[in-house]
Parts: sequence; structure tokens; C-alpha cells
Amino acid sequence: MNIYDVSKKANVSIATVSRVLNGNPNVSDKTRTRVLDVMEQLGYTPNVFARGLGLNTMKTIGIMCSDSSDLYLANAIYYLERNLRSNGYDAILCCTGYELETKQKYFDLLCSKRVDAIILAGSKFIEMRSKDNAYIQDAAKKIPIMLLNGYLEGNNIYSTLCDDQAATYHAASQLIKSGRRRLLYLYTSISYSGANKLQGYQNALADAGIDLGPDYIRQCPKDITAAKDLLLSLHEQGLEFDSILTSSDALAAGAVKFAHGAGLKIPEELSIIGYNNSILSRCTDPELTSVDSKVEALCTTTINTLMGVFNGVNVPSRTTIAADLIKRETTNF
Amino acid sequence: MNIYDVSKKANVSIATVSRVLNGNPNVSDKTRTRVLDVMEQLGYTPNVFARGLGLNTMKTIGIMCSDSSDLYLANAIYYLERNLRSNGYDAILCCTGYELETKQKYFDLLCSKRVDAIILAGSKFIEMRSKDNAYIQDAAKKIPIMLLNGYLEGNNIYSTLCDDQAATYHAASQLIKSGRRRLLYLYTSISYSGANKLQGYQNALADAGIDLGPDYIRQCPKDITAAKDLLLSLHEQGLEFDSILTSSDALAAGAVKFAHGAGLKIPEELSIIGYNNSILSRCTDPELTSVDSKVEALCTTTINTLMGVFNGVNVPSRTTIAADLIKRETTNF
Repeated sequence: MNIYDVSKKANVSIATVSRVLNGNPNVSDKTRTRVLDVMEQLGYTPNVFARGLGLNTMKTIGIMCSDSSDLYLANAIYYLERNLRSNGYDAILCCTGYELETKQKYFDLLCSKRVDAIILAGSKFIEMRSKDNAYIQDAAKKIPIMLLNGYLEGNNIYSTLCDDQAATYHAASQLIKSGRRRLLYLYTSISYSGANKLQGYQNALADAGIDLGPDYIRQCPKDITAAKDLLLSLHEQGLEFDSILTSSDALAAGAVKFAHGAGLKIPEELSIIGYNNSILSRCTDPELTSVDSKVEALCTTTINTLMGVFNGVNVPSRTTIAADLIKRETTNF
Repeated sequence: MNIYDVSKKANVSIATVSRVLNGNPNVSDKTRTRVLDVMEQLGYTPNVFARGLGLNTMKTIGIMCSDSSDLYLANAIYYLERNLRSNGYDAILCCTGYELETKQKYFDLLCSKRVDAIILAGSKFIEMRSKDNAYIQDAAKKIPIMLLNGYLEGNNIYSTLCDDQAATYHAASQLIKSGRRRLLYLYTSISYSGANKLQGYQNALADAGIDLGPDYIRQCPKDITAAKDLLLSLHEQGLEFDSILTSSDALAAGAVKFAHGAGLKIPEELSIIGYNNSILSRCTDPELTSVDSKVEALCTTTINTLMGVFNGVNVPSRTTIAADLIKRETTNF
């Protein structure tokens, strides 16, 4: 049930239905009555945020990200902008950094610019404490908020997610199936996406009856050298691991450097799996097996959902997209 | 001589001078006359594009780039947006791809949005045939056009450039000084920046009395595998080279893979130099010696110049910034 059904049944243009929805006076009383009658007959509840069709809009969407030079986010911004442009929308970019205060400040700033919607790119925007997310839920009373690989409950908030938990579950299970038993998990942050990745790893171990404990779950800055150094120090401390699962290709690239430094053969003595299938995965030697987290599909779906919201179509508040495991040279399966 | 000098000498605020310049009626005749008299005394010619201070502006700048997921451009966009934001301006991003027709179409679209200026990020926007750049010069009659690492003559067009020619000259000279004689040059495109890089390489060879000829200058797509494959085929054809200078880190990363594939020791048997000092330079093993092309400084200067234009300050139409050579493991100097 959407605006198109109403227009068809009332025998008026979609623009006319939209004018009625927007309270535009340029509609005759007769037509207005017919459209409202059809809506009632069809049980159509207009999405109050439906304001597509160029009426009462600047045709501008705000895209917020922590850091557009991050490999994943740079790709996301590219695909979001291209998709918005092809739908006739401009993208105002806003790089916020990682501080909650700055994120809130820029969010409020974008809202005050009368953008038609805000896209929060990356899972860094949703805070642990729910009161820290209230400003987003407040803004959603006025404009749609789109989360790209983040999740927050609320009216007029729409999430498009990669199934990160299934992805790390599958990756860890493949390692176990290929004979690995000591799987080290390396991650940078516990965002919504980060927590799901970790859970996938833990579930795979539990289902295989492997109990490794907290020593095998390590936090590390998203930096090649930091990962290399951490792994060298764990190796020197005598921690035994035969495979490394990571939350990003940068950490996996550091793991390759660690293996070279420690004289370990990849994949015979050490298997490594990256995440995001970025350009880094083809830069290391050997090249990284990596999870393709489908950033292009996430962006296309985000914009399609947003256009659906604008057109008054009934869209899902949450869409999950399956990842792929791209096998290269750092695993032997 | 700028708007500040006028404001000081006329003993009025900068906002008042700006109001006079913009023909704003909220200035008394007495004040207007005083300001105009001072301008005449000081020989101040107002920049017709000076419209800072929030008068008659949307405070929005268009940033155009071919592809925001490119490592260099992703960094550029990040720094440009941060600098604009801190000056109170929004950035509308527009990814154009590489087709002239699409670039022109999006450029016209941005102009029609009444942005206060347009930044063309990267050297891909300036075409070889000058008539293909006329649309940019036309637009500059209305708003300032800022070129980030590109160059075009014209009123109200401002270029901030990395000294790419000096950078490759220095890199090639260092290779020659360290005993190399057969320097292969690998590049992707002959943009303004690309032509300068090539010239630097050629000048260094000429100054050292080395004559290698066109066999040693090779074009290659900006892709790791493409570079590796091209080099393997040149090697099999018997072309002898002891060092590779590249126009991007992706090509240099491919050169590292070629050396591993051909069994050549880096840097003993083969020296490699990348360009842009991107994350790729720290991802390969050994890590890449690479030219730091100073993208952050270029972006800061671009925005400072633009703010100068808005404030009626006399700014240079062309600023060149020196690159740095970052020495890592693929060279022995």
C-alpha cells in the first residue's frame, strides 16, 4: 500500500496525492476529498516523512562519518553519493571524528540546515548508553535517519546492516574445519558491528567445543604496525595460536608482517583472515583471505530504502545483507 | 591591501565594509561615503567575489572529485571538509567519474545550486584541449574555482600544487646517486600532475647523462596486479632495470610483488619508490620508500586561499608546496 496505489485508484497524479499530503492549497476541494476518501478506503496511512517529488525540499541529504579517509568509509561515501546523485539528491558531507560531543554538535548543525534526511555511515555513531543516542531519536521525529551498518531502535530510523556475526562465524568455522584449534581474535572497537563480529567468533568456538578464554581475544588500534608489535609480544610471551581472525584488513596486514618477523609460514603455520576485502587485502604478500562486507550493496539498499520512505512506500526498518568470504593466500581452505 | 586595512582606516567594522561592498542598504550615507573614500585613498579594488562574513551566501562549497574512494582523494576530501567546517562552510560532495561529459554536467549542476565556490580535487579535471576547459573558466566569472593539484589559467581560478616535478627529480637523482643506472618509470595518466612527474624523471636522467629512451617509460592501470603482470612481462622480454619509480603507491606495491615473483632482492637487486605515501606504503613487505605529496598541506592552503578570496584579501593564484621523500625499505639510500 503506497502513494502510487492511492494515485491510481483516485485517478490523479502522484504529484497531486503528494500535494494533498503536504497540505498544498493548489488542489481543488473536490480532488482533495476524492484523494482523502481513497486513502481511507485503502487504509493508507501517509508516512509523515514522505516528501519526495521535489515538494517542500532542498533535495539534500546529510552524510555523517567519523573519518572519510578510512578505507571502508571512503568507499561507503563514494557509493552513497553516487546513488543519491542518480536520484537527484545532493550530499552534504560531515566528518565528525570520534568524540560524542562533536558528533552531536555536527548532527544538530546538519539538522538545522533543513536536510531531507541524515545518513550515519559506519557503526561508530551508536553509543553504548542509550541516553547518549536520544539526540538521534529526537531528530528522527522530524527527518528519516538512515544507519549504514549501525543499529538503533526508533520510529523513522532505518538500518542496513552487514551480517557480521554470520560472517565471522563462517570464517572461524572454516578455520576450525581446516584443522585450526587456537584461533586468536583481533579487534579494534566494540561498536554494534564489532560486538557482532566478536559474537560470531565466540559462537563458532563454542559450537566446535573449543574453549580458549579471554587470552585469545585481543584489542588493538587499527594500525598495521600496532598489530604486528602486539602479536610479536604475545608470541614472545608464549601464547600459542595457529590462526588469526581480525575485524579489519589493517590488523590482518599487521599479522602478515608479524608472521614474516617471527619466521612463521603462511598459511602452513599461521592462517590469517582480514575483514572488508579492501585494497590492503591485495597489497600484502601473501594476499589476504578477507570477508567482503558488501559496502556497495549496503549503500544501494540504504538509498533505496530512503527513497521508499520519501515516496511513502512501506519499507523495512532493518535490512541485513550477507557477507562473502573471499579466499586468497593466507588460508589453506 | 585588503578589507581589514579599509576597515581600520575608515574606523568601521569589517562587516560594515562588506555591507558597502555588497550594496547592502543598512549603512548610513555618511559611513558609505567614508568607506568609499578610504578605498579610493588606499587604491583598494574590491574583489568582486568577496562575499564572506555570511552576507548573501549559503555558506556551501562544492567539492568535485573523480572518485572519492581513491586513497589520495579520500584523504583530500577529509582534509578539505574539516577545514571548510572549521570555517563555518558546508561541503557538497560530487563524485563525477572520469568522463568529460559527466564532469561538465555535474559542474553545471553544482553551479546552479548557488554554491559559493567549487573545489576541483585532483588533477583529472583539466583537459589537454583548452576548449574543453572553457566551461570552468566561464563559471569562474561567477564564483571562485579552486584547483587542488591541478592548474588552469584564468581570472578567479586558484591552484594549490605539489611540486611533483621536483619530487620525482629528487627521487630519481637519489637512485642515480646510489648507483642505479636503469630507472624504469611507471605511470598511469598524463594529467598536469602526471606530466610534471614524468618531466622530473626525464630531467634527472638528462642531468646525469643517462639516456634510456622510451622503453623505460611505461603506462599501466593504477592496479597492483596490472603493475606486477606488466613488470613480469617486461622482465621476460629481457628489459633490464635496476630500479622502478612510480606515480602511485599501488604501482609500487605491484613492483614489490613482481620482485617477489621474479626472485629479485629488494633493494639490493631492485629499488622501488612509490608516490603519495599512502597506507599501501606501510602494507607491503618490505615497506615502500614513497614521496609524501603533502595532501593535508595542499588542502589547508586551498581553504586558506579560498577564505582569503571571500575576505577580499589579495591571494596568489598559484601556490606550490614541496614534497618529501619518505625513506623506508625499498631503497638503499
